[in-house]
Amino acid sequence: MGKSKTKDALQYHAEPRPGKISVVPTKKHRSQRDLSLAYSPGVAIPCKAIEANPADAYKYTSKGNLVAVISDGTAVLGLGNIGPLASKPVMEGKGVLFKIFADIDVFDIEIDSKNIDHFIETVKAISPTFGGINLEDIKAPESFEIERRLIEELDIPVMHDDQHGTAIISAAALINALELAEKEIDKVRIVINGAGAAAISCAKLYISLGANPKNLFMLDSKGLIHSGRDNLSKYKAEFSNGNEDISLDDLMKGADVFVGLSTGGVVSKEMVKSMAEIPIVFALANPDPEISYKDAKSVRPDVIAATGRTDNPNQVNNVLGFPFIFRGALDVRSRRINEEMKIAAVKALAELAKESVPEEVSMAYNNVKLGFGPEYIIPKPFDPRLISSVAPAVAKAAMDSGVATMPISDFEAYELDLKQRLGLDNQLIRQLTTRAKQQPRKVVFAEADNPKILRAAQISYEEGVAIPILLGKKNRILSLMEENGIELPDDVEIIDPKSDEEETRRLKYGDLMWSKRKRRGLTKYEARRLMRDRNHFGLMMVEQGVADAHISGITRNYPNTIRPALQIIGMDEGVRKI
Amino acid sequence: MGKSKTKDALQYHAEPRPGKISVVPTKKHRSQRDLSLAYSPGVAIPCKAIEANPADAYKYTSKGNLVAVISDGTAVLGLGNIGPLASKPVMEGKGVLFKIFADIDVFDIEIDSKNIDHFIETVKAISPTFGGINLEDIKAPESFEIERRLIEELDIPVMHDDQHGTAIISAAALINALELAEKEIDKVRIVINGAGAAAISCAKLYISLGANPKNLFMLDSKGLIHSGRDNLSKYKAEFSNGNEDISLDDLMKGADVFVGLSTGGVVSKEMVKSMAEIPIVFALANPDPEISYKDAKSVRPDVIAATGRTDNPNQVNNVLGFPFIFRGALDVRSRRINEEMKIAAVKALAELAKESVPEEVSMAYNNVKLGFGPEYIIPKPFDPRLISSVAPAVAKAAMDSGVATMPISDFEAYELDLKQRLGLDNQLIRQLTTRAKQQPRKVVFAEADNPKILRAAQISYEEGVAIPILLGKKNRILSLMEENGIELPDDVEIIDPKSDEEETRRLKYGDLMWSKRKRRGLTKYEARRLMRDRNHFGLMMVEQGVADAHISGITRNYPNTIRPALQIIGMDEGVRKI
Repeated sequence: MGKSKTKDALQYHAEPRPGKISVVPTKKHRSQRDLSLAYSPGVAIPCKAIEANPADAYKYTSKGNLVAVISDGTAVLGLGNIGPLASKPVMEGKGVLFKIFADIDVFDIEIDSKNIDHFIETVKAISPTFGGINLEDIKAPESFEIERRLIEELDIPVMHDDQHGTAIISAAALINALELAEKEIDKVRIVINGAGAAAISCAKLYISLGANPKNLFMLDSKGLIHSGRDNLSKYKAEFSNGNEDISLDDLMKGADVFVGLSTGGVVSKEMVKSMAEIPIVFALANPDPEISYKDAKSVRPDVIAATGRTDNPNQVNNVLGFPFIFRGALDVRSRRINEEMKIAAVKALAELAKESVPEEVSMAYNNVKLGFGPEYIIPKPFDPRLISSVAPAVAKAAMDSGVATMPISDFEAYELDLKQRLGLDNQLIRQLTTRAKQQPRKVVFAEADNPKILRAAQISYEEGVAIPILLGKKNRILSLMEENGIELPDDVEIIDPKSDEEETRRLKYGDLMWSKRKRRGLTKYEARRLMRDRNHFGLMMVEQGVADAHISGITRNYPNTIRPALQIIGMDEGVRKI
Repeated sequence: MGKSKTKDALQYHAEPRPGKISVVPTKKHRSQRDLSLAYSPGVAIPCKAIEANPADAYKYTSKGNLVAVISDGTAVLGLGNIGPLASKPVMEGKGVLFKIFADIDVFDIEIDSKNIDHFIETVKAISPTFGGINLEDIKAPESFEIERRLIEELDIPVMHDDQHGTAIISAAALINALELAEKEIDKVRIVINGAGAAAISCAKLYISLGANPKNLFMLDSKGLIHSGRDNLSKYKAEFSNGNEDISLDDLMKGADVFVGLSTGGVVSKEMVKSMAEIPIVFALANPDPEISYKDAKSVRPDVIAATGRTDNPNQVNNVLGFPFIFRGALDVRSRRINEEMKIAAVKALAELAKESVPEEVSMAYNNVKLGFGPEYIIPKPFDPRLISSVAPAVAKAAMDSGVATMPISDFEAYELDLKQRLGLDNQLIRQLTTRAKQQPRKVVFAEADNPKILRAAQISYEEGVAIPILLGKKNRILSLMEENGIELPDDVEIIDPKSDEEETRRLKYGDLMWSKRKRRGLTKYEARRLMRDRNHFGLMMVEQGVADAHISGITRNYPNTIRPALQIIGMDEGVRKI
């Protein structure tokens, strides 16, 4: 990650106040009367009601919409065992995703754990607080035991997302890929490279969806998992196949499906080349896949590929699952998240990818026309239909499998409620950003020797809403960029209106301005002189059609279509503050 | 508590969504770029920074402004041992108080505790999450051991508010009462009735402020605590005085100070009568004091009295302490809340009560002119100066006593920051309510046979912003009030404009209206007929000066001064929704 990204990430987390979350009152609290209801003496009434009937906690407290994101920090992202405190930014971030994708409130809880029992005891002790528990970034094999026992011993939904998230999303992708390849799941040969928590969950889920264990080959860092090995945990041993070593190279020959949950670059082009007709390659290592999307395509144009990356088609992203799975589970007060519910999520995701894609979703993704096919086997994370497709399917599965304690009777009303839950506001603003992205505008940043303006230019470039043109002294701007860790591609123009090179343009723009303003007493000489001023120069660039918009620290003058987008990315605000 | 209050309290907690809190993102989260900073991959950067330097958790996460309000529900308010789940409304409410009084974010954590060790282990395990821990409603004597060990074993501030809150606030009141009585703390005889957690903390704190243990008498339910008893916990035994039983009656004779932390009504008028000159009586049992403020005053006009009630002068309310004590402790990243910090809070509170009171505070409290004296020995909870008086004193004491890990250098800037922290908005709106309270208006509620309008009338009456006049059929209104548990005092007028009794007024108002509208073609007959319509009748009441304002479901027509107040109490909204 570049210097600029590092700085952005730290700044994002630190300013204006540390962290990413806040806890706010949802009820009126301004008058003495409000407080006498919220606290003493009025609060005694709901307390007594809950004492008499524990289920009333869902009626009078936040419990029913509150999920704990709990970690001991032993297996964080690509960072490994960084401990509970250092994992806090990830857990807060997970909470943010729960909130914005499914309107679920999250307390992130970082546990300083001594051992499995201690961890389990701690979670159980604090469980009255919550309506559900999302375990996160806990290392295997401890995570298996922890999840299993918590599911058994608690009566609220518990899920370790690292295990099941990838399994669920990739299973949805697999179902659709197999359909496109016209293959049956019980016939295909599947190679899973990696034997961590996620890999084991994938294998289990694929098998419950019909995959034949005899056709499923799993490899850990020491090679194929088979019954001849004596160094296998009980969790791995379950997936033993055969009794002798076979290399990944050999396993890939003629294989139908490859699922990588290992490390970047371990799959060669030759391996993919050797696979069966219409091979399915899910290279899910992060940030670098086992083989890049491009490389896989280059040797096998018939491949159906997926990765964990945003910049390729078919991103396998957990955010497609956990927010909606918990939403559905909470909404029927499910006692579990069971296999039936996970499979319902898989099927709902797979189905959604086959429906026609609303225009705003295509627009949000660089206006590529999305439709079911090799380049679109799973929905996109920003698809607004996710919540009303996946959550009801999960809720229904909970009811059908007998773990829902408060069944939903009117699913139509429930879906409508889900659609409205995230608010029109969110949708509208997202649409405006996507509109701006549809046709990025050339925007003149007149006072580019201000670090804030430069940062705004960078962001608008990265967001794809603008192609910046910077005005000011080239050397000064370049050194400011260096100092502030701001990166812009070389083809971004930097123009100094005061420089000798720009004399021709100054004359031309000056004359243009004079022609427009001469009636108001402006002389040609004055107009030409004014062009040494960056803000006037920028205005004339727009006038001439060289640029679409002009932003200065003093005045703002740009088309209305770009304005909302600038506001969204905070540029508008940044500019105003100067 | 009446039927109406019960309904209000349940409704407040249940609607429009259950509970009183929500967790919201504080950073931008709309675009793909935002999310790549909030979560993967950007979030790895602050994680790594914290791994390298744990103190960076305060820079990049919410930890530094996050307090856990933790309870096992064993000693809730006046409810006793109702368990963790049923205590959740109280803990959420405490979180709301932390937020609105000191802008501190709170996770309420309800612990299903098996024993002291289990409770302590649980809190320790989840402690990386938080910047401070407020223990709440844990029964004695377990709470002593729990607090002591957590303070010892954790390096973030821990306080059991039930113990220290009352001690701190009552100590501030005691200091000022003694000053008014012109007595020295080391000379006075103090009787403390009650020997629970709060009573023991009070005794300890009074002694550290100079009270003489020989002059301090503590009673539990079995009578005076003395060395002749063999049924005392070690915590109580510490306060043994003498070696024989003395009755409360006898102890009160000639006593200077009585502090009640027991149950309602146990102190008789005779007892107070027998006390020394200018007696000090803090009757803090809730909701009914050991002796009412009025009764104490009736037998001893020279008494300086305090209770836990909002409707008496000198309310001893914990909210004067905990928000600002934690604010100060968090802001210097204190490792503790130690005696020095508690005493600093006591002194800051005592001092603040001696400063002249800003008009808006007096206005908020029924416009009684507040000034240091027997009826004003401690500040009022809504005093906006509390945060900038108490928090800096606590912060400074933490620094001076060597427990602050991030000292503040510029206290002037800090105070300014604290003043701004709660926002102008809050202050302004509170001021508007108080303005409305200053002169409650007679408000005609024209469509009083609507339960929502009736509820609005009740609230505006209780809030003291309006004296309602209800229009409609008397029987119908009374039965609606009964059905909906709405209570209004008997002297609230109910007028039926259609009834025979109102014929005289209909004629009078009709003629008034005719005189105003005849030029627009209204006949006298039509005008008189219009008066059968409640909304026209109400308008004419205002025209005549019988009422100040008129509210209907269709039109609203009331002076601007009352409008903000109505909005605040949600009446405006309620009316609009009909």
